[in-house]
Amino acid sequence: MIKANDPTLKSWVNVPKGSDFPIQNLPFGIFKAHNHSPAAGVAIGDHVLDLVYLQQHGYLNELDLPGGIFDQKYLNDFFALGKQKIRAVRERISELLRDDNDTLKGHKTDREAALKSLRDVQMQLPVRIGNYTDFYSSEEHATNVGSMFRDPKNALLPNWKHLPVAYHGRASSIVVSGTAIHRPKGQIKLPDSEQPVYCPSRKLDFELEVAFITCRETQLGQSIHTHQAEDYIAGFVLFNDWSARDIQQWEYVPLGPFLGKNFGSTISPWIVTLDALEPFRVQGPEQYPHVLPYLSYEGDKNFDIVLEVLMKSEHADETTVCRSNFKYMYWNVNQQLAHHTVNGCNIQVGDLYASGTISGPSPGSYGSLLELTWNGQRTLHMADGTERTFIQDGDTVIMRGHAEKNGVRIGFGDCSGKIIAAY
Amino acid sequence: MIKANDPTLKSWVNVPKGSDFPIQNLPFGIFKAHNHSPAAGVAIGDHVLDLVYLQQHGYLNELDLPGGIFDQKYLNDFFALGKQKIRAVRERISELLRDDNDTLKGHKTDREAALKSLRDVQMQLPVRIGNYTDFYSSEEHATNVGSMFRDPKNALLPNWKHLPVAYHGRASSIVVSGTAIHRPKGQIKLPDSEQPVYCPSRKLDFELEVAFITCRETQLGQSIHTHQAEDYIAGFVLFNDWSARDIQQWEYVPLGPFLGKNFGSTISPWIVTLDALEPFRVQGPEQYPHVLPYLSYEGDKNFDIVLEVLMKSEHADETTVCRSNFKYMYWNVNQQLAHHTVNGCNIQVGDLYASGTISGPSPGSYGSLLELTWNGQRTLHMADGTERTFIQDGDTVIMRGHAEKNGVRIGFGDCSGKIIAAY
Repeated sequence: MIKANDPTLKSWVNVPKGSDFPIQNLPFGIFKAHNHSPAAGVAIGDHVLDLVYLQQHGYLNELDLPGGIFDQKYLNDFFALGKQKIRAVRERISELLRDDNDTLKGHKTDREAALKSLRDVQMQLPVRIGNYTDFYSSEEHATNVGSMFRDPKNALLPNWKHLPVAYHGRASSIVVSGTAIHRPKGQIKLPDSEQPVYCPSRKLDFELEVAFITCRETQLGQSIHTHQAEDYIAGFVLFNDWSARDIQQWEYVPLGPFLGKNFGSTISPWIVTLDALEPFRVQGPEQYPHVLPYLSYEGDKNFDIVLEVLMKSEHADETTVCRSNFKYMYWNVNQQLAHHTVNGCNIQVGDLYASGTISGPSPGSYGSLLELTWNGQRTLHMADGTERTFIQDGDTVIMRGHAEKNGVRIGFGDCSGKIIAAY
Repeated sequence: MIKANDPTLKSWVNVPKGSDFPIQNLPFGIFKAHNHSPAAGVAIGDHVLDLVYLQQHGYLNELDLPGGIFDQKYLNDFFALGKQKIRAVRERISELLRDDNDTLKGHKTDREAALKSLRDVQMQLPVRIGNYTDFYSSEEHATNVGSMFRDPKNALLPNWKHLPVAYHGRASSIVVSGTAIHRPKGQIKLPDSEQPVYCPSRKLDFELEVAFITCRETQLGQSIHTHQAEDYIAGFVLFNDWSARDIQQWEYVPLGPFLGKNFGSTISPWIVTLDALEPFRVQGPEQYPHVLPYLSYEGDKNFDIVLEVLMKSEHADETTVCRSNFKYMYWNVNQQLAHHTVNGCNIQVGDLYASGTISGPSPGSYGSLLELTWNGQRTLHMADGTERTFIQDGDTVIMRGHAEKNGVRIGFGDCSGKIIAAY
């Protein structure tokens, strides 16, 4: 285990009990303080550590970083330095924040200037996302959808267990947690009508996903092997792939989801590094039929990350509507990246690759309202006494995720979005 | 008609007979001269006019352009100035190149420095493409594909005449004409096998398309009306959406094309402005059933652009394999952009929106080998005596397009790519 993950480490920065951001996490993000430009930072407890300030004041000198690498709107240029450099920065930040290290702790001016309360900053989209791919890698989710819309006896299509099915999504409409999303309008074909109608979606849904973000590029024609894949992955975010089920159902044959998805997707602001998640690796499910050699892998490539979805209407308390886990994924991220590039498709720094809805085996672990209410046939009971089949205007959907072991909790922070009325 | 389109205009720059780039065209691109940075230019005859040089030497002063706007790797920042500015630059270039205008013509040093032979420069990808969408807007193409793989009596799916079907493609793998493409490898399910195999594609195809590029952004939640759509469109390029039919067929259910497409797409280097194409507007096909109001439009929104595809094996002559026309499109670009944004999906500057394969009514006008050979059932005869059903290693596919009227020919230049062996 690398040093920064040591469960005995304590920080001189106060980390409240239950915080997603202990010294063992140190995720990267882009924050904006009032009257300041966006800048790169690291979360610690209820604070963000300003990497621009640290670099400018010499605290990162030994790392030989390009000048101004953190004084940017996005993390892309920093990530492009590669995994070794990202790791070195996280290790150095870990040193600076340790209880027994006086370097920053002992310098009142720098300490106070470099540490900003998360309450006083606005988190931004952390990377400029050049390409966004959405996989469909949860067997339970694919089985539920196949049972609902096709045949429960042959819920999975013939290709599903041979390759990680995926499609390209819209990069422009990915927004950071906290951004309100307008209910989409579009064409809907009602069951009792010959013609489609144009109206706001009546079946607005969330999809609980985890996404990885790349920190290394390939050239067109090159492929990434499963055992190399982690060199290309900086870390993970939570991802809400908002979906308008009625728009999707009418439009999606034969070329896949389009307007039912591309009106907005929400990501959590902090990129939790693969390094921070090392202690939480678990074995993936057995894959049968056996996969082709280019999809074979060795080692533990799944991650035990508890995921939950909460909903709240305005002025009401949160209601937990789903508890799932990232470990349920049938296809792991190494396989996803190997498959994506097996044909020579090139990867860029800052690409986002989402898992697809992560459903578990029990009904309470389904990662979408489509599955939780079985396409509106069941209702969910909210804390304020109201009921839901799909999302109503004014509802906020919050996704949370964390891994926990030996008293260390590595979390993502909220991935939250409110649905507001159609324009 | 705006001045720059006047068919009587002549340039003091020699424009060979049959050139795609007379003074009435003036498309924008990014070129790279030996030992120079990439720069924006305008094509005229066999030359490129260097916009960086013109701006630096005061020829564009009256336009009040930001400094260094052409001294860039991509046209995005220039396009973001909007249609009025793009139009003003094209008008000014038109003035400077007119036979009767002595401003640049009369200044030997500047004239010789600003005009570079196209033979001496390398054309680059003209825009940084943030988002790429591929439509499916040719009725003949959709009918052919539906007849081949589904039911000739119900070839079009129920949604096809109600909305311009589309899907998101991969932006990272779009390359400029002249870039070689490796034959993709991937999973293929052979008809006589239970299991998929991993091998290079055996059914590699081209798709003849035209794409538009945007020059104005919208915010998430906003929609573009059909009558506003042209304010967002800078111009057009030719587009080859290379397709591996065997990979596509196994992977595409239920989420659409992915690895069968994203190993590479080729665009022609010059963005021909919507302004230059004004004289070639024609009426589109009657649309029945009537479209929903948000898709209704007024005026002539199709363009009479002759398109052709040629193939050549190494050291052999070109063989014309298809002659089609952009005017065949069922859904026009105004409808495409209105539909794409009806749900609030946001548009960015430099997005690329491709038409989908453009097939005409006669077999010789089909825009893909899939249709021309009816999925390999017929063969095409090449000039060197060989035969093709799909593309072989070493084959080059060249797409050309031009509009012609009153002795003026507005063309695109070549959209060319050679297929080389799988890695």
